Amino acid sequence: MGNEIKASALLLSVLAGRFGDRLSVSTAAREQHAGTESHLPGAIPDGVVLAQTTEEVIEILHACTTHGMPVIAYGAGTSLEGHLSAERGGISLDLTGMARILSVEPENLLCRVEAGVTREQLNTHLRDFGLFFPVDPGANATLGGMAATRASGTNAVRYGTMRDNVLSLKVVLADGRVIETGTNAAKSAAGYDITGLFVGSEGTLGVITEVTLRLYGIPESILAGVCSFTTLDGAVDTVIQAIQQAIPLARIEFLDEKQVEACNAYSKLDLPVRPTLFLEFNGSEAAVAEQAETFHAIASQNGGGKMTVARQVEDRTKLWKARHNAYFATKALRPNCRVWSTDVCVPIAALAESILGTRADLDAEGMLATIVGHVGDGNYHVLFILDPDNHEEEARAAAINERMVSRALALGGTCTGEHGIGLGKRENLIRERGGDAVALMKAIKQLMDPSSILNPDKIFT
Amino acid sequence: MGNEIKASALLLSVLAGRFGDRLSVSTAAREQHAGTESHLPGAIPDGVVLAQTTEEVIEILHACTTHGMPVIAYGAGTSLEGHLSAERGGISLDLTGMARILSVEPENLLCRVEAGVTREQLNTHLRDFGLFFPVDPGANATLGGMAATRASGTNAVRYGTMRDNVLSLKVVLADGRVIETGTNAAKSAAGYDITGLFVGSEGTLGVITEVTLRLYGIPESILAGVCSFTTLDGAVDTVIQAIQQAIPLARIEFLDEKQVEACNAYSKLDLPVRPTLFLEFNGSEAAVAEQAETFHAIASQNGGGKMTVARQVEDRTKLWKARHNAYFATKALRPNCRVWSTDVCVPIAALAESILGTRADLDAEGMLATIVGHVGDGNYHVLFILDPDNHEEEARAAAINERMVSRALALGGTCTGEHGIGLGKRENLIRERGGDAVALMKAIKQLMDPSSILNPDKIFT
Repeated sequence: MGNEIKASALLLSVLAGRFGDRLSVSTAAREQHAGTESHLPGAIPDGVVLAQTTEEVIEILHACTTHGMPVIAYGAGTSLEGHLSAERGGISLDLTGMARILSVEPENLLCRVEAGVTREQLNTHLRDFGLFFPVDPGANATLGGMAATRASGTNAVRYGTMRDNVLSLKVVLADGRVIETGTNAAKSAAGYDITGLFVGSEGTLGVITEVTLRLYGIPESILAGVCSFTTLDGAVDTVIQAIQQAIPLARIEFLDEKQVEACNAYSKLDLPVRPTLFLEFNGSEAAVAEQAETFHAIASQNGGGKMTVARQVEDRTKLWKARHNAYFATKALRPNCRVWSTDVCVPIAALAESILGTRADLDAEGMLATIVGHVGDGNYHVLFILDPDNHEEEARAAAINERMVSRALALGGTCTGEHGIGLGKRENLIRERGGDAVALMKAIKQLMDPSSILNPDKIFT
Repeated sequence: MGNEIKASALLLSVLAGRFGDRLSVSTAAREQHAGTESHLPGAIPDGVVLAQTTEEVIEILHACTTHGMPVIAYGAGTSLEGHLSAERGGISLDLTGMARILSVEPENLLCRVEAGVTREQLNTHLRDFGLFFPVDPGANATLGGMAATRASGTNAVRYGTMRDNVLSLKVVLADGRVIETGTNAAKSAAGYDITGLFVGSEGTLGVITEVTLRLYGIPESILAGVCSFTTLDGAVDTVIQAIQQAIPLARIEFLDEKQVEACNAYSKLDLPVRPTLFLEFNGSEAAVAEQAETFHAIASQNGGGKMTVARQVEDRTKLWKARHNAYFATKALRPNCRVWSTDVCVPIAALAESILGTRADLDAEGMLATIVGHVGDGNYHVLFILDPDNHEEEARAAAINERMVSRALALGGTCTGEHGIGLGKRENLIRERGGDAVALMKAIKQLMDPSSILNPDKIFT
């Protein structure tokens, strides 16, 4: 231990000499970089360094390798499973200073950005081109962080996740070498899918410094809708049938009664307190009208009520803002508490069974929680609202979470649809994929990061 | 060398003892398994063994590891870049005996098949469910082979490639361990994307024995169309604008004049001998009509002529059969010759420059060849028609191919959009991705196959 601390102090002085006040060792900065949105207590790093170029990232990795210190890449700090916790101390490598939009090629429907560009920043920039980047995890995350965590969100049902929308990455490897993982071509059969290996690797295989993304034309017409159902089953059956009939839904989000109640209060809505779907249809005016009509016919056969539609930007924005604020609405249900958001993803036909089982479990435990989900993908979240000082309550939430994961796995699903493994779901990963598959992942980690400096202890125990 | 031959003979006797007449050492069987569709001369394996179960694949890999003999997984034998050539001898592991459709889950829009199931077999089986599997490389390839080569084809522009449509794989690793790479969930953020690592690994990282695939509802309405253009630029600009306007094209295929001429002769069509687009629109009847109309308006502004449409199954089939027979139509242009089909993929705005450059090069060399492509993806093929005894001609074709790749790379594209690296494009891969990225791929290969028994010499020199 003595050596480690000395090495760390030495490294900090090296970095201070090189980066000046872009190295911070203040408690505030270090605490802020420990991942405050996670339900897990974040261990704080020894220092925070703000990189401005790929070359600086290389220098920092070289220094950390030399001194055997961990490096944890940091974007907007919005990850949820303890990804940013400095379990073994080390350096938080803050990439928010790399926020340049390097190029937009409208005719090729792609752009190149530095890792610290946020999705809102990008979409504001793209508006004048008539283009947008669809992946939307709710938070205003950085695109590097979204790539690293394989982020997803409300419109993945139509546009896919980061896996589908990252064309190429610039990555600094543990030893300081820099690779480009792909090209600007829409597809390729050239060698192993290294882009895919880094997307979702949670900072454990390299540091992403630039990202090439697919873009889409802003649809001619956008229609939002809300539809309440008498039963959860009815809502889910509607989703399944709509997808089977290939209605190209842009978003289809489920809110359970508790979440509707929370949104009504927080966002000043007056939705019926029932299982509810929030919808968005994109396309030409005629296509959107036809989609909405077909959808409503399906919903009506499954106990769906009248579909309230919103065509104007301000009405649509109000609706989707309520959905985006689901987290804060849930938090407001119980003052001075914190929200723990967990997620699973199941084959869509198993969705009702999965959600109902979890809701029954929550009710049996008398646990306050909302359920909200990207149901077109079979992905949903439970948002626990916990008293931070009540460890017994937290333990019961953890047990419910474990049972929710077990239920998802038994139904052929995955322990996380979009939040990732981080620290929180490492055992779940082994249960899901089996020891041999996880051993293969871990062997790749060891191959690419033999000194284990890249976000150690994440994904694997 | 003496040792190797003895080991091989010993291995063959072990396999003969275990598999009886499912091991073949006949010249005919061995030659047939060397990859006759490739433009490269295939080295023949020492023996062919027909596996019927994953357990048998494990046994075969164990035996090959023990005897240090290469194993080359074999499906329908339709790969094009020498993937099946037994460069160091060894065993061709024929998986066509594993042709069971294990399950179809219509409500989850997925199915599970053994690796030897062909796409036509699967689609015939799915018809009664009202479902289909979209990836269509032309040949009636096996789904295991299509996964292993990251196959693509005519409707990737709408439905994606194998990368997008494989949910999970059962893979036997070099040491005989068996892993499942994913789940039945539509998306997951659980750990590294191991599924993606095997998709496109060309048999070099493991042997795929089962595949879980995404399925789609057969569209309510399908409309096919053909449209000729005065210039190649006009055809390509039409494609770019249609994609920017988010017309959900199901297929958009380009044929150059020479290819149209060949198809007219072979498939008894009377298309104008001009740059031509073959199209397919999927959706509701109204949506399809609107898509076709919007498309034709764009085409008209770019020198497109009247769009001939085909609504009836037999008319559509005739049209797309002509497209699928492009290879044979090209072959028929010059008797007793063989076709070498190569491909590149470029950002779509670079497509016209890329194709025109190659066409000029072909014409300057007086080289007979057709050009046909999945232009919605920026992917196109040159089909050389070569006298098998004329090595000078082959060398000139190879030089044109190299210049076509160089042009694609300079335009931000990839050396292969769908055929893969195999033996033929190993140097191109290094030029495209750089030495460090390819070194990383190779290190992963060495990690996962330390004895180098899995399809050695492919992808990497």
